[in-house]
Amino acid sequence: MARMNKQWLLARRPQGAVQPSDFELVERPAPALAEGQLLVQHHYLSLDPYMRGRMDEAKSYAAAQQLGEVMIGGTVGEVVESRSSAFPVGSLVVGMGGWQQLSLSDGRGLLPAPRGIPESVCLGAAGMPGVTAWYGLTQIGKPKAGETVVVSAAAGAVGSVVGQLARLRGCRAVGIAGGARKCAHVEKELGFDACLDYKADDFRAALKAATPAGVDVLFENVGGPVLDAVLARMSAFGRVAVCGLIAGYDGQDISVRNARSILVNRLLVQGFIVSDHLALWPEALRELTGLVAGGQLRYRETVAEGLESAPRAFIGLLRGENLGKQLVKL
Amino acid sequence: MARMNKQWLLARRPQGAVQPSDFELVERPAPALAEGQLLVQHHYLSLDPYMRGRMDEAKSYAAAQQLGEVMIGGTVGEVVESRSSAFPVGSLVVGMGGWQQLSLSDGRGLLPAPRGIPESVCLGAAGMPGVTAWYGLTQIGKPKAGETVVVSAAAGAVGSVVGQLARLRGCRAVGIAGGARKCAHVEKELGFDACLDYKADDFRAALKAATPAGVDVLFENVGGPVLDAVLARMSAFGRVAVCGLIAGYDGQDISVRNARSILVNRLLVQGFIVSDHLALWPEALRELTGLVAGGQLRYRETVAEGLESAPRAFIGLLRGENLGKQLVKL
Repeated sequence: MARMNKQWLLARRPQGAVQPSDFELVERPAPALAEGQLLVQHHYLSLDPYMRGRMDEAKSYAAAQQLGEVMIGGTVGEVVESRSSAFPVGSLVVGMGGWQQLSLSDGRGLLPAPRGIPESVCLGAAGMPGVTAWYGLTQIGKPKAGETVVVSAAAGAVGSVVGQLARLRGCRAVGIAGGARKCAHVEKELGFDACLDYKADDFRAALKAATPAGVDVLFENVGGPVLDAVLARMSAFGRVAVCGLIAGYDGQDISVRNARSILVNRLLVQGFIVSDHLALWPEALRELTGLVAGGQLRYRETVAEGLESAPRAFIGLLRGENLGKQLVKL
Repeated sequence: MARMNKQWLLARRPQGAVQPSDFELVERPAPALAEGQLLVQHHYLSLDPYMRGRMDEAKSYAAAQQLGEVMIGGTVGEVVESRSSAFPVGSLVVGMGGWQQLSLSDGRGLLPAPRGIPESVCLGAAGMPGVTAWYGLTQIGKPKAGETVVVSAAAGAVGSVVGQLARLRGCRAVGIAGGARKCAHVEKELGFDACLDYKADDFRAALKAATPAGVDVLFENVGGPVLDAVLARMSAFGRVAVCGLIAGYDGQDISVRNARSILVNRLLVQGFIVSDHLALWPEALRELTGLVAGGQLRYRETVAEGLESAPRAFIGLLRGENLGKQLVKL
């Protein structure tokens, strides 16, 4: 008898903020394997802000998620059936299995999960979010020891890694996050030099105080007024890695008002998508996996239980309710 | 008897748009030369948008112009007195002589005017504006043959060179300028593939039609809605050289509303100031001077007569009334 597979489909494109009713839960029999194929039972599903962009029809860097299809998403899990010599039954693999319990694969795009670290970390600090942090910081930000690095969404899966990598490179790391709880976590558990609450009344004054020598590198995840505030603090020849603009994902205005800073301070502003740079992933993952295994790169996870919880957890992520990496345990 | 020297001083900082009363004309005796010094009689004074920034007290990339001092500006002229072996009487020299008839120098920052081209061109296509165009295009834009290059303020001293250099590199050159007269000049005399009037009702549609394959390189001189319109046309991995934001020089809002394009299209946006890159000037001037001498780089000049006309000519430049390089003939 075939295994049953619960799946979340994209039921409709969001009108503004994402709603639970934008998704539809179905249960179908898992497909039979052809030669060379394998079936993965997912242990964890990764929830990430980029998924919001895929739900829209608007032009983005990747094809839109099709209506009626399984939501895309990174997964880690175990091979439970196999007609592939590359991935025998029992292999632990990382891939883009989607919002479902089981996924069929021909092995393309699958990677063995690295040993020596918990499997969930392959979706976080030693996975796509970690590589995103590594790429934007080292390849665009190019911080030198003694420089000041600012990162927004600092308590998230990407931002938390950015600041720690900056500290390890001898930089002053200043985070920006929403609320006192997140800021305390970033300062005390992740070891940033400072973390500022953008919702606080004195945010701009606090930013100025925390960056007395200006800002050399900004790793931007948010956009909008937070970005403007940091642009006003940039030093000459500063670098801005634009990784995300989550403030505008539901269609809000994220105009940049301090564009003059780009000219006056001769800034380099560069947008990037980590999947454009696959050639650098092995180098990045080697460093990140080593740091996690050695205890030098700390991480926090927010874990929702069961596939059914995925839409609610995703909406919470977009609202900034999570701390660290948002996962769903299946 | 000492020579007399008319000078324009900065009398007050502009409140919004520059007014003639922001300047004060004085006449003073030229100073006596010390050993190593020389006196230059200016033939031409260059008027350039960057001067507007210097008139403000706000933080900019260079020190503000001091009140009561001679307005800064590039000049070409002849050495009429000399106690310097490097620059004997009769030498033709390019420098930052300022808004005055005569300037005293110890030779630092002075360059001999190149031979084989009209002396005024040392202030335009084969001078600072030409090097600005060359730097932004070749060092930031890095266009490949077959790509589409868009430049705003295309009829100006910098923009006119950008498009011609792009054409010489095998690119499609699309200019943006204000009004039919400028656009006709850019297309017919400068040989751009197209030039679009940003004041026209159908500007966005015309821009789309003129860039059927998208925009690979934008050389930005203006900012504001014109910048936003081009950002919406950028291709993946496009480059934006931010040279000027003249639309905002009097304090107007030049918010960038299409910042999402930076992320979605993985753009590189870089501000620059040509004086940061003096090491590249000889290479740039060699190419530009050769192209002007060979007739491959065309230019237009708008020449105001007499030092007295400088403030009016400068205000006209900021309003976009000039075609090509704005000069004052002394």
